[in-house]
Amino acid sequence: MMRARPLKVALLGCGVVGSEVARIMTTHAADLAARIGAPVELAGVAVRRPDRVREGIDPSLVTTDATALVKRGDIDVVVEVIGGIEPARTLITTAFEHGASVVSANKALLAQDGAALHAAAEVNGRDLYYEAAVAGAIPLIRPLRESLAGDKVNRVLGIVNGTTNFILDKMDSTGAGYQEALDEATALGYAEADPTADVEGFDAAAKAAILAGIAFHTRVRLDDVYREGMTEVTAADIASARRMGCTIKLLAICERAADGESVTARVHPAMIPLSHPLASVREAYNAVFVESEAAGQLMFYGPGAGGAPTASAVLGDLVAVCRNRLAAARGPGESAYTRLPVSPMGKVVTRYHISLDVADKPGVLAQVATVFAEHGVSIDTVRQSGKDGEASLVVVTHRAHDAALSGTVEALRNLDTVRGVASIMRVEGE
Amino acid sequence: MMRARPLKVALLGCGVVGSEVARIMTTHAADLAARIGAPVELAGVAVRRPDRVREGIDPSLVTTDATALVKRGDIDVVVEVIGGIEPARTLITTAFEHGASVVSANKALLAQDGAALHAAAEVNGRDLYYEAAVAGAIPLIRPLRESLAGDKVNRVLGIVNGTTNFILDKMDSTGAGYQEALDEATALGYAEADPTADVEGFDAAAKAAILAGIAFHTRVRLDDVYREGMTEVTAADIASARRMGCTIKLLAICERAADGESVTARVHPAMIPLSHPLASVREAYNAVFVESEAAGQLMFYGPGAGGAPTASAVLGDLVAVCRNRLAAARGPGESAYTRLPVSPMGKVVTRYHISLDVADKPGVLAQVATVFAEHGVSIDTVRQSGKDGEASLVVVTHRAHDAALSGTVEALRNLDTVRGVASIMRVEGE
Repeated sequence: MMRARPLKVALLGCGVVGSEVARIMTTHAADLAARIGAPVELAGVAVRRPDRVREGIDPSLVTTDATALVKRGDIDVVVEVIGGIEPARTLITTAFEHGASVVSANKALLAQDGAALHAAAEVNGRDLYYEAAVAGAIPLIRPLRESLAGDKVNRVLGIVNGTTNFILDKMDSTGAGYQEALDEATALGYAEADPTADVEGFDAAAKAAILAGIAFHTRVRLDDVYREGMTEVTAADIASARRMGCTIKLLAICERAADGESVTARVHPAMIPLSHPLASVREAYNAVFVESEAAGQLMFYGPGAGGAPTASAVLGDLVAVCRNRLAAARGPGESAYTRLPVSPMGKVVTRYHISLDVADKPGVLAQVATVFAEHGVSIDTVRQSGKDGEASLVVVTHRAHDAALSGTVEALRNLDTVRGVASIMRVEGE
Repeated sequence: MMRARPLKVALLGCGVVGSEVARIMTTHAADLAARIGAPVELAGVAVRRPDRVREGIDPSLVTTDATALVKRGDIDVVVEVIGGIEPARTLITTAFEHGASVVSANKALLAQDGAALHAAAEVNGRDLYYEAAVAGAIPLIRPLRESLAGDKVNRVLGIVNGTTNFILDKMDSTGAGYQEALDEATALGYAEADPTADVEGFDAAAKAAILAGIAFHTRVRLDDVYREGMTEVTAADIASARRMGCTIKLLAICERAADGESVTARVHPAMIPLSHPLASVREAYNAVFVESEAAGQLMFYGPGAGGAPTASAVLGDLVAVCRNRLAAARGPGESAYTRLPVSPMGKVVTRYHISLDVADKPGVLAQVATVFAEHGVSIDTVRQSGKDGEASLVVVTHRAHDAALSGTVEALRNLDTVRGVASIMRVEGE
């Protein structure tokens, strides 16, 4: 039954993920062959620094000329784990033009140029798989593209960045402030020396773009995703969330509008109830909660990063793509047929939790309530506390358009009796 | 791009799941066509009672002759949602022989005759998909078969029966006894009039057999699965679990032995730590926790039953099978190449939590400890409490072979000073 010709794999990048992919391809060669129906062979490894020792990799396979490798013509599958936009983009399109299918873990590239890459795969009749690009080892792209292909997804709510979840979990469990928790994350290797991409939500925004596109069968680019980082979340915010029976998570939220005619995608910190399955996602774990019409509420949980987990996702794709090649078939391509527009953040319907520092005198609450009413935002609860002439008001709103909510906050800032807006946090997952 | 010829689907069974499949095929016809690349058409619906009104289904499609329907020869996909062994088994093999692929939700049949059905699909070059057979809407078969195809699964730990999870969750949250919680489950429609298949673990055992086979690429039949129901779990057991920082769940557990040379599959109630992700699975939800070599710990969560969720899984399979037919390709078939033997329960390595009613006199603990030592079972903790000449001992063991643990319990029963074994519960998920 086993084909004589092995399938040839070119590996672009041999860092944390790439070296793990190469290792598993070697140590689990027999298992992979059994699952694919033919052996797979590492045919070349493109690296930047050829002199670095790479344990278990035949030095004769190592090259610095990635372009020549993807142009060889005998490569069945190119595995791209370089990351970033260039040279990854050009290498992937060149690979398609020379007959290879592609497995990629590149979220930034997929979020920015997914449509063009899918088109290149389509034109050349090849596969483009990228399970590893979102939430590491967690099967998510395949369940959304395939398992839920007969259902209608209305909402995706995800913790898709492990660094920020580790920081927020530490803040929640120890009462630490942001900087202290970030320092611990850095010390433990959960945060990079420059944590900007994580803590400012850029990484999560790229994943949100990919998830929204797949979930709603439409095109969502990175620029379409509203983004707020979590560097301004304070220990006081976390304590406030606790008092409401909530915790704070950095969420990627993709929603279909109530009228079904548009979608939104956004990343920001939000309060979610402790009873929500996402609330119990600890440390650097990721989890994605999916709401669909027929299936109801699903959640996918696991490690969102790391060499071995990401390699697991890459290899799952590699097996699928190799099987498709043997069958001269293709997996599902891009599905963007719904062509739904992406609405701006102002159109999102959500709730706010707002803490105000106010003057401790009669009539303040009435003034504040009037501002909400003027903006058409209905108040759910208000909590007042005060001492020594200082007072604070915590207002939780009902659901309203984000534009109305931010308009309300702007107007509150202009009230003489409001000394400051201590925090604003959206409330999700209810 | 759209093929003119629609793909023809025969639906066997039109109960809670079947009618939902038919409804979605009609209401979401354009979406399904876009995802498949061709329209799908309901070509026939086989039912037992043709006179029952079936809203939204063309009466001319309804037949009582399921055999004639699957033999028609123009059917692309047969969707079997009858359940049970016969006539489902014969209809499925007949469908393969007449050129159709099959989507089934039939856990009992797959657990008992999966190998024969896969062989029939293989011989005829057709697909057999059954995502809906395990844990309803939760994508599980596809992630295990495909997403983790490049990884090595070592353990699957699942809450795969919603009825028993509802009962145990009620007992845990309200302090109710088994019967009271069962009555509530029945009143709310979560338990059937005869709850035997659920509460005695038969339903979960079928799912464990299917999961073990797919996870370990070996053949596991229903008879290979050790099974204990949860009817004897008491409010006192739940309280005991709480004192240990645990809760009690009915678990389906599939494990690869430490030496990798055999596998086990079992269903029984067990204590799991409250910090384990499965502990927070409430009400009738299902969740499956997967441990693999590279990916690490993954969890899949969602509704495990119900018409619409099960239909979602069926339709996901239907889209995949239809796409395969258009491409003249096949999805992954059965993968049982590892041919690992299934070890009996005695070989399982686990921990016990044992409550003993003992005489309140000196030396009892020494006697009991001696029995454990004689059987090679190491004690982790002992808690003694007593009053009025009665006393109880709660012993938690370290990990040992299940055979040694049950041998220990037998010997304890024969001690004069042990008046009774109040409860025995395995401890998992640590």
